[in-house]
Formats: sequence, structure tokens, C-alpha cells
Amino acid sequence: MAQPVNIAVAGVSGYAGLELARLLLRHPRLKGTPPIFLGRPGEQESALPLLTELHPQLGNNNGARRLSLEPFDWHDLRARGVDLLFLATPHEQSREWVPQAIENGMKVIDLSGAWRLQNAANRAIYRFADEGEVTAAAMQEEAVYGMPELHRDAVRDARIVANPGCYATSIILALAPLIRAGFINLDHGIVCDSKSGVSGAGKAPTAATHFMNAADNLSAYGVFNHRHTGELLEQLHLTAEQITFTPHLLPIPRGILSTIYLELNSKRTADKIDHCYREFYASSPMVRWYGRRLPQIQYVAHTNFCDIGFELAPDSRRVVLVSCLDNLLKGAAGQAVQNMNLLYGWEESEGLL
Amino acid sequence: MAQPVNIAVAGVSGYAGLELARLLLRHPRLKGTPPIFLGRPGEQESALPLLTELHPQLGNNNGARRLSLEPFDWHDLRARGVDLLFLATPHEQSREWVPQAIENGMKVIDLSGAWRLQNAANRAIYRFADEGEVTAAAMQEEAVYGMPELHRDAVRDARIVANPGCYATSIILALAPLIRAGFINLDHGIVCDSKSGVSGAGKAPTAATHFMNAADNLSAYGVFNHRHTGELLEQLHLTAEQITFTPHLLPIPRGILSTIYLELNSKRTADKIDHCYREFYASSPMVRWYGRRLPQIQYVAHTNFCDIGFELAPDSRRVVLVSCLDNLLKGAAGQAVQNMNLLYGWEESEGLL
Amino acid sequence: MAQPVNIAVAGVSGYAGLELARLLLRHPRLKGTPPIFLGRPGEQESALPLLTELHPQLGNNNGARRLSLEPFDWHDLRARGVDLLFLATPHEQSREWVPQAIENGMKVIDLSGAWRLQNAANRAIYRFADEGEVTAAAMQEEAVYGMPELHRDAVRDARIVANPGCYATSIILALAPLIRAGFINLDHGIVCDSKSGVSGAGKAPTAATHFMNAADNLSAYGVFNHRHTGELLEQLHLTAEQITFTPHLLPIPRGILSTIYLELNSKRTADKIDHCYREFYASSPMVRWYGRRLPQIQYVAHTNFCDIGFELAPDSRRVVLVSCLDNLLKGAAGQAVQNMNLLYGWEESEGLL
Amino acid sequence: MAQPVNIAVAGVSGYAGLELARLLLRHPRLKGTPPIFLGRPGEQESALPLLTELHPQLGNNNGARRLSLEPFDWHDLRARGVDLLFLATPHEQSREWVPQAIENGMKVIDLSGAWRLQNAANRAIYRFADEGEVTAAAMQEEAVYGMPELHRDAVRDARIVANPGCYATSIILALAPLIRAGFINLDHGIVCDSKSGVSGAGKAPTAATHFMNAADNLSAYGVFNHRHTGELLEQLHLTAEQITFTPHLLPIPRGILSTIYLELNSKRTADKIDHCYREFYASSPMVRWYGRRLPQIQYVAHTNFCDIGFELAPDSRRVVLVSCLDNLLKGAAGQAVQNMNLLYGWEESEGLL
Repeated sequence: MAQPVNIAVAGVSGYAGLELARLLLRHPRLKGTPPIFLGRPGEQESALPLLTELHPQLGNNNGARRLSLEPFDWHDLRARGVDLLFLATPHEQSREWVPQAIENGMKVIDLSGAWRLQNAANRAIYRFADEGEVTAAAMQEEAVYGMPELHRDAVRDARIVANPGCYATSIILALAPLIRAGFINLDHGIVCDSKSGVSGAGKAPTAATHFMNAADNLSAYGVFNHRHTGELLEQLHLTAEQITFTPHLLPIPRGILSTIYLELNSKRTADKIDHCYREFYASSPMVRWYGRRLPQIQYVAHTNFCDIGFELAPDSRRVVLVSCLDNLLKGAAGQAVQNMNLLYGWEESEGLL
Repeated sequence: MAQPVNIAVAGVSGYAGLELARLLLRHPRLKGTPPIFLGRPGEQESALPLLTELHPQLGNNNGARRLSLEPFDWHDLRARGVDLLFLATPHEQSREWVPQAIENGMKVIDLSGAWRLQNAANRAIYRFADEGEVTAAAMQEEAVYGMPELHRDAVRDARIVANPGCYATSIILALAPLIRAGFINLDHGIVCDSKSGVSGAGKAPTAATHFMNAADNLSAYGVFNHRHTGELLEQLHLTAEQITFTPHLLPIPRGILSTIYLELNSKRTADKIDHCYREFYASSPMVRWYGRRLPQIQYVAHTNFCDIGFELAPDSRRVVLVSCLDNLLKGAAGQAVQNMNLLYGWEESEGLL
Repeated sequence: MAQPVNIAVAGVSGYAGLELARLLLRHPRLKGTPPIFLGRPGEQESALPLLTELHPQLGNNNGARRLSLEPFDWHDLRARGVDLLFLATPHEQSREWVPQAIENGMKVIDLSGAWRLQNAANRAIYRFADEGEVTAAAMQEEAVYGMPELHRDAVRDARIVANPGCYATSIILALAPLIRAGFINLDHGIVCDSKSGVSGAGKAPTAATHFMNAADNLSAYGVFNHRHTGELLEQLHLTAEQITFTPHLLPIPRGILSTIYLELNSKRTADKIDHCYREFYASSPMVRWYGRRLPQIQYVAHTNFCDIGFELAPDSRRVVLVSCLDNLLKGAAGQAVQNMNLLYGWEESEGLL
Repeated sequence: MAQPVNIAVAGVSGYAGLELARLLLRHPRLKGTPPIFLGRPGEQESALPLLTELHPQLGNNNGARRLSLEPFDWHDLRARGVDLLFLATPHEQSREWVPQAIENGMKVIDLSGAWRLQNAANRAIYRFADEGEVTAAAMQEEAVYGMPELHRDAVRDARIVANPGCYATSIILALAPLIRAGFINLDHGIVCDSKSGVSGAGKAPTAATHFMNAADNLSAYGVFNHRHTGELLEQLHLTAEQITFTPHLLPIPRGILSTIYLELNSKRTADKIDHCYREFYASSPMVRWYGRRLPQIQYVAHTNFCDIGFELAPDSRRVVLVSCLDNLLKGAAGQAVQNMNLLYGWEESEGLL
């Protein structure tokens, strides 16, 4: 890459933002041009906290890194030749800013749910304000669902990358090979029982994220109405009746494990299933296929891998899949960097191993 | 109860044993006749640890309680008029001792899996040694599956109470009302995704129970072959193909949450389902029905309750049940005490609230 | 007790309130007269939540218990013959209500810090509003510091019991015997390094109590200015320079462990120290002295015990004490019930074992 | 670096070994020459597990990395031009192997306690077998205590680097500036109350590392006799009576926080203390000085930083220091890589940010 890449990031105050900052700061391709970290629009420069005040984790002892926040200003970003904007902002914010970024000549990787859904009915769950929606709707079609394993080529050419949801990533990567192969009896329904660490619930202190409620506990939530469901339907070409998805809040900081139950449409051997996955993920550096062993959350925590394994019932019909990832990495910031790598033609796993 | 009740307990060194000791020591009906805690057979009296050495939790400051272990000796137990023997021993041990206890005129509540299964094929998973199996097989039929909510009357008259498995209790209590009502489409299969705290994995230090492997982690195990499956089949009258049960190891000390997925055999309203459970558990003090809200593990930890709630899909077909209990109490020692209460005609929840 | 005891409790919504409700509901002396649980003053009866909505843990299946909240009204409390009012309210509230309760002929056990300190300078940390302070100051002298092990007789006769702080209880019980015996070299300063579970930080969701900040973490806070310090000074007769107290937030729900460092004023044997504690706590059922072994938090969690042990350096001068308790029980609700037992002449540990 | 660096690592099966492997595999200077991971001596090549079987965390999907274990053989290592051997082995093993490595012309960075102590009396706690001890004792003097912040130049020229203990690192880095400045009243004794995550207790499953004993708990151990004490004495030039060190087992996977109490030998301002640390650590990239704010474990987890802050009492005499690090990184594998960087003249923090 002869040409330097200028990157800006908005929304670094959250957990995905912290991981994104960490990954970008040590990305080998960005050594000379550290990313610009942006405050909220309208925040006075003097009122901006240091990035290292928000996240003491990122500090160092000699101040060599530029770790302050800078005021958010489209003109300034354009003037500084920003090519790529990461948005780790709430979905309403992302819905508003993506068109503006495109107008200002930038590409965008958006980590929110704002641009993931092509079907307006599915998107309704996000309840976007009306204003701006005309422009947005026009742009929606252009957005690419940023899951490299499914849409590698489209991501390479995208201007808008809609980075997938964390739960959705774990489930779609586990199911896509069998669904594409036409192995599943969809009449029986697929069950996805997912469990996520608390970072998935966001940084705002709430009753649900209070240590006393989250620790030594487990709870299901969003049964039959979690907003990642739309991604499952669109990416896997399923109807709402064909898949049941139940998320749970797990008493750990990070990591998702999805246990997925399905019935094959005819008896098949374990080898057949194994082969299907090996082939599907042969060129995907960030998916690790375990065959007939089961991955665990700790194998993927603090990595950008999605690990998948399975078990087959003695009846050669029922299959249980287990899929694990780090919700802040492969489920958010890591996958975003993976998409950035594709956008610039770098190795897909660069800066992620 | 004019007559004093004499109780002995074997196997107090484990987690269920600790809880059993705790419950019995403060049971109002046993104030005058504290239980006899037994060492392992063959252990010299002088070599026996104090119960409070095994479990400092049980100690007090004035030594008023009898908290030593006593040598295990059938003659002695008989001579002291022991009526009831609790076994919190490994299943091989329980398989051997129950017939001897009966022979010595005692009733037994056994917390292991040794006597829960009537079907020899299901029981095969325990691989009992051959010797003694003839006697045992003859006695098996007499054993009552000690789940008061399903077998209250049989427990009252039992000599051998086979205390249910922890996972099995959470699943059977959640499914029994709908199955008995004939509401479930069994062709589609029931999925039970269960998560248990680490105490369920036993006291022996192993790689799986090492803090570094259990903490900040989640893992599935025993897929398609967990030994509690037999209890599900026998108690719910299902075939192995009709139910899929996957246990997971949860990074918390205690508690089980089972998320259960099923399809109704015709569209039904939430009220209909709600009514079915209310009726079924109207006289069961240890089950709390939540209706269309979902219980969490922390509501039941350190209690003997099994909490159950549900959600119904917009298609009025798919149901998700959530069932929670404390694996050491309603899933083990608490249910054992509940069974003792029935055996002696005491209030079912006595000493358990 | 021929005469029934009528008890009311304000402030049940918090963690100490939950434990207090639990203990009172199963206290053998209160079987016939369950406590009245009060809402906040001014709350409409119709707006009051059920106690079981606040704490699903307390519910049961047959509604036999009175578990609703009732409106707070002094006239009503008097009319119903309430003898004893528990306050698990914020300290400002307690400062205001205790005089009113006394005026209305009730005794009070207050779990807040409002009445623990006789020295106005120490009390300044609570910044009470001026109004009411004249009455309050007059009443302050009457308040008894409710630590049975130190003030058993005074508690029996008290009208106002100021229930001690959780950290303070763990430290005072560990140090009192050696200080009263005059064994400590106070010129060298005593160091109290205390660690508390997150329930000590209260129920309000804050950044500090967010699971993501509390879990997998440890942090010190309130160095040289924690408000329990005044209790240490007054109860142990020390100056601020003689004791350094540092609390830490531990990633567990409940429990306190204090590690205490001191220098003896002359060389002494371990036996001498052991003897000093054995004698001091001979008649205290809720303190367990471990001698030269060290207690751990899990020995006391969910109990009302304070466990204390020590180690002596080879120089026979330096002593390390370890003191553990459950901050919600011996550090709050349990000690309050212990005080109630004394007030009514019941056995000190009744309902607490 | 024109010349390629050939590195071998023994002892990768443990937690420090895993981190060391991770760091070396992604170290920029080792891109072309990945380290050789060694099995145990005498293990047959065919019996050696894959490194990715030991640590599924390290696997990838395309097999490009050399992640097998190789048989341990000195001749082979020499033949392949190994310059540097990392030992993450038990101390007995390290005591035996370091002289052999030197003999074979390699440098060694040893993560065990075997070579850290110059004083034989301090070293006695490790109870080395006699054989080999003559050679070892002769070599001991040459070993450099591998704490770059104190011995940067010596490390650069060392053949044997004794990588410091995890607790010792957190305490020595916190105290060295004040001790060198002569600010501390050593007559009063320094108190170091340290808390470590469970990875510090090693990978062997024991009662202490069982999840049920470690979780929701805190315990002190090794009071007055922990083997890191010798490092404190030698590196800080203190006598055993001048410092009291108590380690605790914290219910988290990784991280150490040490709270350190001392008295100044004359009143000093906070600025004076602040200045002392700023100067001392001006050129140390891996220490972050917080001044009068306090670091927490989560700021350093998964990093190679040691974070230090302080608080000064109103009497301007008593100081509390808080020092945090990740016991597996700055307390083990990370510091080892920092030492490697010095040995080869690379930037000290290379591969560690």
C-alpha cells in the first residue's frame, strides 16, 4: 500500500469502541497513520476527555501515541483526507451519519444494527426517526452485510459495510454451510440457544448489568423478539417460524456460545457433515472448525476466531452445533477490522492474530 | 410425631452432603434428635475427621451440636434405632447399601442415580458391578422416584426413595403439565438446553472444575448421552428420539436453568397454558409458577423452589419454558428433605423455607 | 414470651432489607406475628409494589405469608402495637425517623450509620441536615452501638440500637481482644486491609457496580477517608494516626475479609494470643475463633458468624489477623436480628443458625 | 537485526507458557523464525501432543504456523543454532537445565524461582536436590534478576536472566523509588497485602484451585513464609522484620493488586512523592505511574504494564501504594519477552503493546 490510509473512529467510549481502538492502534498497516478518535458532535474541544481517561487500559508511559479525542467535524475529516470512518455509535446515530459520511467521500464500517437489514419489516424493530429515512432507504440497498465468510467479494467493493450482530455472527456462521448444502429439515424448526457475556448488554449501568444481578446468575431475555433475529432470517433465508432464538445473559465479561439444534432432512453420517464444513471454511482464516469436538468460550475469548463443532445423535438425524466467539471481537470490533482488511486488499487476518 | 425420629446420613463430605447436613441440623422436627453423620465403612473411629473439619461452614462456637463423624456400622445403626438413612454416596455405593439398609429395617432416601431408573437399558449407563445385582434388581421395582410433585402418595409409603437428578428435576417439572395435558407435538422433538453451576460436577479436583477452566467460560458436554436422559424418558414417557438434552457447565457455584423448546400440537392461547400449570401445581408448595414472566437462577439459589415460566411465539405454536432451581437443594438435598417430610407425614415444606 | 412481639421494617428494598425480611420471616419467635413491611412514606397504598415483586426470592406458591408492603404511617404503627421498628434506610432518613419512633413508643434497630458515632467530629462525614439535629443530638447519647460481643448488656436495655457497619464489625471483633488486653504497640500503627463483596456498594446501578467494572477486577477506594473509620476509633479507643483502613471492592456478591497487621508491644507466644481470644469470645455464639488457622469468606457466606484466626511472625512480634463475615448478615441484617434477640431476652443466636 | 534469532521454549503447557507462546508467535522480530516449542525430555516424538491440543486458543484454520511440540534434545537445539532458551518449567527443572543450556552455548530466560536469589538462606525455601548444586552455585552469581526497570543494563549483557516472581514484581516496582530515595521509616515496617488471580496457583487441579473453593471466596495463605519474600529482601535491601507480605487468592483468573502500607521518615508532600516516581520511571515504557489516583486490576489485565498510584494520609506520614499487573504478563511471560527485547537490543516494549 503506497498510499497512507486515514482512518477515523466515532463511538470509542463503549466496549466495542475500546476493542476497536486497541486493534487499530496496533494494526501493522496503520503504524505511520494512527486513527483519529472522535468525540461526540457538538462537544467542545476543551471538554473532550482523553481517550486514556475513558479507557485507562489504552494508556502508555511515554505519550508517544496520539490518544486524545478530537472534535467531530465533517469538514475537518474531509480536509485531513479521511478515507474510512468506523462508527461504534448507537443505531440511531449511525442511521443518520452513514449518508453524511458517503456524501463526504468516505467509506464506512458501521458496528450498529442500523444498516444490516434489507427488509423494512425486519428493520422496524429499530424504530428509526422519520427524518432522513428517505435518503437512508435509498442507500440501504448499497450496504453490504459485513460477514467476510459469506460476502467476501461484496465487502471488498463496498462503500457501506454493516458489521453483523454478535449473536447473529455466531449463529449464521454455524448454520450457513448446512443450509446452503440443503441438509436441514426446515419443517421441524431450528433452535438457537445463545448465551452472551455482559459486555453485550452495553456500558450503561442498569439493574440488569449490576454485578449483584448479573453475577452468579443466568437469565433468558428477548424470547421471540430479539432484534438480531432479522439478520438470521435475511442471511439464512428462513421464515420467522423456522427458527427460534433465545439469548441469555451469562455471568462473564465477554464471549458468546450458541448451542444450535436442528434435524437433518435425511440420515447422514458425521463425515458428511464434517466435509461440508471443511469445504465451506477452507479459505476462511477466522473460522476454526472443530469437527466432532466442541469449542468453549475460553478458546475464543480475546481472539477474532469463531469456533464451531458438532455432535450427531445415534439416530443420524438430530444435530447439535456449538459455536463460540468473542462478542467484542469477531462479534464486533474484530470483524470490523477484518472488513477493513478486505476493503484495502490486505490479508484478511492482518492485525487480528 | 410422638415418636422420635432417628436419622443417619452417609456421604456428607460432598456438596450435596454439606447442604443435607445444614438442612437436617436446623430442621424443626429434629431438634431433639440430631442426625448421626457417618464416616466411610472401614474407617477407624480415631481416623475420622470432624464434620466441621470437612465443612468449616457447619461449625459453631460452643460445641453444643454433635458434629463429629461416627463409624459406619449396620449393627450400631440398628441398635440405635435408626429409622431413616440418607445416602449422598456415589451410585455404586448406593446400589450396594440400599438393600442392606432395607434388610436392617430402615427406610432409605438415596441421592445418587442408582435407583432412579426402572428400565434396565436406561440403567446400563451406570455400569453396576454384577455382584449384588440380583438382589438389587428385585428391589428396584419398589423404589419410588422421589419427586413429590409427581409421586407424592407413593413417596409417603415408600421404603426406598430414589431422589431425582438435578437436571432431570428442572426439566421434568417444566414439561410434565404440558405432556400430561397432551398439548405437545412430539413429532417435532423437545429441546432441553440446560446450564448448571459447577457444584454439579462434584468435589473432585479435575481439569474441568479447575477455576481457570470453569471461570469466564461456558461449555457443553454429554451431548446425546448424559445419564439424566433416562429419567426424562421414564418420567415423561418419551422415546430417546423425542427429546434432546444438552447440559452446559456454567461459571457459577450453584443453580440450574433449563431453557426448553417445544411445539404445541395445535394453536393455543397463553391463558390456556397458564391455566394448565396453575392447576397442576396448585398444591405443590415448592414449585413457583411465573406465568408469562421468566425466572432467573438468582431467584432460586439457596432455596428449595423450582421456578417455572414460559413465553409463547406469535404463531401460537412454539413455546419456550424456563425452569430454574438450586441443584444442591431442589436438585438434591432439599428435595431429599422434602421427601423425608412426606415419609413422616410432616408438612412438605417444613424446614425448607 | 407470653406477649406477642409486633415488628415493622422500613427499607426492605435493598440488599440488607432482603436479608432482614428473610430472617424475620423464618424466625421461630415470630411465627404467629409476621413483621409488617413498610413502603416509603407518602407512597400511595395502591402504588406499593408487592414485596415479592421487589424480591422474587421471597415468594412462595400458596400465598400464606403476608408479603405485601404497607403504607408508612406512624399512627397506624402505634395503633397496631408495633414494639420494634427496624430501619434499613439511608442514614439521612434514619437520622430523621429514629426520634419519631421513640416518640411513638417504639424501640428501634437502625442499620444505617446515622447513630453509630458519639463524637460529632466523626459524625460529620454523614453531613446531616441541620433540621432535627437538636433533637437528634440529645438522643444520640442514648444510642447503643449494637455489637453484642462488646455491648451485650447495654443492648438488652436499649431503646435505640445503632447496628454496626460491616467493615467495622470485621475489624473491631478482630482487634478488641488484643487492644483490651493491652498487647498492641500502638506507636507502630495498625493496618486494616479489608475486601468486600459488591453488595456492600448498594443496589443503585453505578459505573462501579456495573458487572464489567466489578467482575475480574479488584480496586481500592476510600483510602484514608472511609466513613467506617469513626467506628473503629470510637470502639477501639484509637486516634486516627494509629489505624490505617483501606477497603477494596471484591468481585463477589457478598462477604468481607479483613487482613489486619499489628505489632505486639513485647514478644509473646502464639498460645498467649490464642488464650486471649478464647477467653474473650467464650460466651459469644456468633464468633468462631480459629486460632492459628485462617478463615475464608466461603466459611461465613450466608451465615451470621464472624470467623477470626491469626498468624504470628517468627520474631514473635508481628501478628496478622484474618477476620471474615457476611456483610449482609453479621455485617448488617443478621447482627440486627441478634440485637433483636437480646432486646427480647431470647437466645442470642435464635433464628440465625 | 541482520542475523536471525533462533528461540526455543520449554514448559509451554502451563499458563505462563501459553502466554509466552502467544507473545512470541506474534512478535514482529520473530516473523521469519518462529520459536521451537519443546516437549518434556524423554517424551517420544510420536507421543508429543500438538501445542494446539494443549491450548486450543493458539490454533488457526490454515495450519501455516508451526504449532507442534518437538522432542527436547540438546544436540538438536545446538545443531539448529538456538541462541535463546526460555524455561517456563518448575524450579527444580530450571535449576538443572540452566547450566546445561549455558554449556550448550545458549542464553536463558528462566521464569521459575530457581535463579532469582543470591542469598543461599533465602534460596533454601526451594529445597533443591544436592546433585548439580555445585555447578549451580557457581553459576548463580552470574544470573541477573530480570527486572528491566531496576537492572536494564545488566539484563542486556546477561547469559542467565532470572525472570522475577509475579508478586515480587508488583511490590518491588512500587517500593523501589521510595526506598532508593531513602524516604521510608524502616523501623515501622512495611506491609504488603497482595491479591492474586487463580492462574498464579498453577494448572494442577487441587482443592484450592477447584472452582467451588476459589469462586465467591477470598483467602490468605503463606503468611510470613511465602517464597517470593526472598526477592523482596534482596532487591529492596530489607531485613525480614522490615517487611510483612501476605498473599491472597482472588476469585479471578488473572491479575495482581498489591496494597502497600508504609510510613515516611519525615513529613512529605504528595508532590514530592509524585516527583520521585516520575523521575524514577521516566524511561520505563512498561510502568505507568498514576500519581494520586489508584489503578485497578482491569486496567492491566492482558497487558504488560505495571500500574502504580498512591495516597498520602492527612498526617503527611502514612502512605498507601497500590500496584497492579497481570501476573501472567508483566508478572511472567511479558516480562520475559521484555528481557528478550533487551538481550537483542530491540525496543523494550516491542511486541508487548
